[in-house]
Amino acid sequence: MSASQLPSGNGPLACIEKDLQAVEELLDRQAASEVPVASDVCRHVHRAGGKRLRPTLLILTARALGCRDDSPLWAAAAVEMIHAATLLHDDVVDGATKRRGTETAAAIWGPTAAIMSGDILLARSLAILVERSLSEVLHRLAGTATTMCRAELMQSLHRGRLDVDLDTYLEVIRGKTADFLAACCESGAIVAERPDLQPAAARYGLNLGIAFQITDDLLDYFGDPLVTGKPVGADLRERKPTIPLILALGSAPPEEADRLESLSSLGPKLTAAQFAEVQSILIRMGIPERVSGLADHYANQAVRELTAFPDTPETAALVAIAADLAHRRA
Amino acid sequence: MSASQLPSGNGPLACIEKDLQAVEELLDRQAASEVPVASDVCRHVHRAGGKRLRPTLLILTARALGCRDDSPLWAAAAVEMIHAATLLHDDVVDGATKRRGTETAAAIWGPTAAIMSGDILLARSLAILVERSLSEVLHRLAGTATTMCRAELMQSLHRGRLDVDLDTYLEVIRGKTADFLAACCESGAIVAERPDLQPAAARYGLNLGIAFQITDDLLDYFGDPLVTGKPVGADLRERKPTIPLILALGSAPPEEADRLESLSSLGPKLTAAQFAEVQSILIRMGIPERVSGLADHYANQAVRELTAFPDTPETAALVAIAADLAHRRA
Repeated sequence: MSASQLPSGNGPLACIEKDLQAVEELLDRQAASEVPVASDVCRHVHRAGGKRLRPTLLILTARALGCRDDSPLWAAAAVEMIHAATLLHDDVVDGATKRRGTETAAAIWGPTAAIMSGDILLARSLAILVERSLSEVLHRLAGTATTMCRAELMQSLHRGRLDVDLDTYLEVIRGKTADFLAACCESGAIVAERPDLQPAAARYGLNLGIAFQITDDLLDYFGDPLVTGKPVGADLRERKPTIPLILALGSAPPEEADRLESLSSLGPKLTAAQFAEVQSILIRMGIPERVSGLADHYANQAVRELTAFPDTPETAALVAIAADLAHRRA
Repeated sequence: MSASQLPSGNGPLACIEKDLQAVEELLDRQAASEVPVASDVCRHVHRAGGKRLRPTLLILTARALGCRDDSPLWAAAAVEMIHAATLLHDDVVDGATKRRGTETAAAIWGPTAAIMSGDILLARSLAILVERSLSEVLHRLAGTATTMCRAELMQSLHRGRLDVDLDTYLEVIRGKTADFLAACCESGAIVAERPDLQPAAARYGLNLGIAFQITDDLLDYFGDPLVTGKPVGADLRERKPTIPLILALGSAPPEEADRLESLSSLGPKLTAAQFAEVQSILIRMGIPERVSGLADHYANQAVRELTAFPDTPETAALVAIAADLAHRRA
């Protein structure tokens, strides 16, 4: 079992297994305490949520840096609730009816329930942090929630545009994914009361997040649907310019660039055969290797940020996660 | 000019005119600091927002209770931002293209921009409160944001149901409107460091909010569209059970109750002539007077809660607002 597939009985995450179970209980309790529809929506999104990457990063960082009390558990529940809120709102925005094979809350209970339950999760998560006197964590997480929305807006402005360059792409994924992982790790350092290691923790999370999103975007072109639980080609059909296409358009000979541009302009009308043609052009250009190489670069950079961390099982788990994420298949 | 129509040069709000101008500047600055689309959306919703009832209540309460520093201004900007966030999300949920004669942000910039900008406003408002060390205010406002969403969900469950009774209706409007006004007044008492008067401030806001929403729901049946800026009959056409219909169904003779039920089941298909028939049944039953009487009852209750407040121009303005809101025509 890989480090990114939780829960893990004996992998590198065994050291925080009880903590992760406690977070599940907090999430269950939160969902159970809601009004009827919100309760169902929260339970659904918590269950469909999957990997618990954000609570894991927060708890590992806090424990690696010597924190022994319960404060990371509340902060970890809060980050998962914020993550759930963004999933709920993103699914409404994208009109998505499925996420990783499971029907979305927006599809089951409608957009009102999804938007309002997302708002409840966002507001409750921040309230929990005040209740636990975790103001500094609250501030960092409110900041990352804002950053994610801004990046989502930027990305929606880029939809259908093929002139997005690598720097702009990296800026969007920093905001959309990586800053949140940075905030989780930084929050771990905050609850551990290690301000000296906050910057390193944040940089670990940021680089990990970039590697994570680059890999995600590569899997959208070349993943195995049976493993990822979602069909390939969704980004291209939604006309989202992501790294495989951006790198290809930036270095393709004129004829192939023209062909890629005309195929990607088809949007939702792109057939399976046409997508296979896109894949074969990209493979011929060595795009999968280049994208993987970039993900590796950021994952390695993430690991290097941990040199100042004490030598603990939790630090080892953070290293394992970085090594694993860049090579994940789902 | 009535107390509820701001800005006012010489009315009861003259005592906080500079404060309200400062809040406008904070809101302008917040909107200006946003990314492109969010900036436009925030500016639009701040401008269309109108009466600034929530900042007004917060500042009046704080000043009435002796607070002289700038802290209520930040809290006031935060409550207006939360209000703006709820308007943005409600307009997406309701599919509304106009609000009080102005096009909604969702109609102009689309649902993505409206949902994400609402999230940004919610997260930023709470972050501002941490930055200003107003944790207790933050906690109260995060609570009211949650309460509003829960009430919106409850209301959406009631849509199309005619068996909603007065108590359930009051519970929904407490959550949807009144608790937020209570939170604003309570926050004023918090920044004024008068915990002894927090409960009275909250009860003033709660009763005021109930009076406010009851009047709003009455105007939806009997308001003058030229004054309110919105057509009558929207709630009935959206099959939202509100107080005029609830009181009428609760006391109509069987024949008229049947007629009201069949007319209200028409939803969006209800014609102007049919709505006029509903109006005339309600008038014959004395519903407008009964609803006004109930609004007066809550407004008077609000004023009674102010007896423990010091005798200041700001307290007088709070009294004037309560007297005015129950009799407003827009």
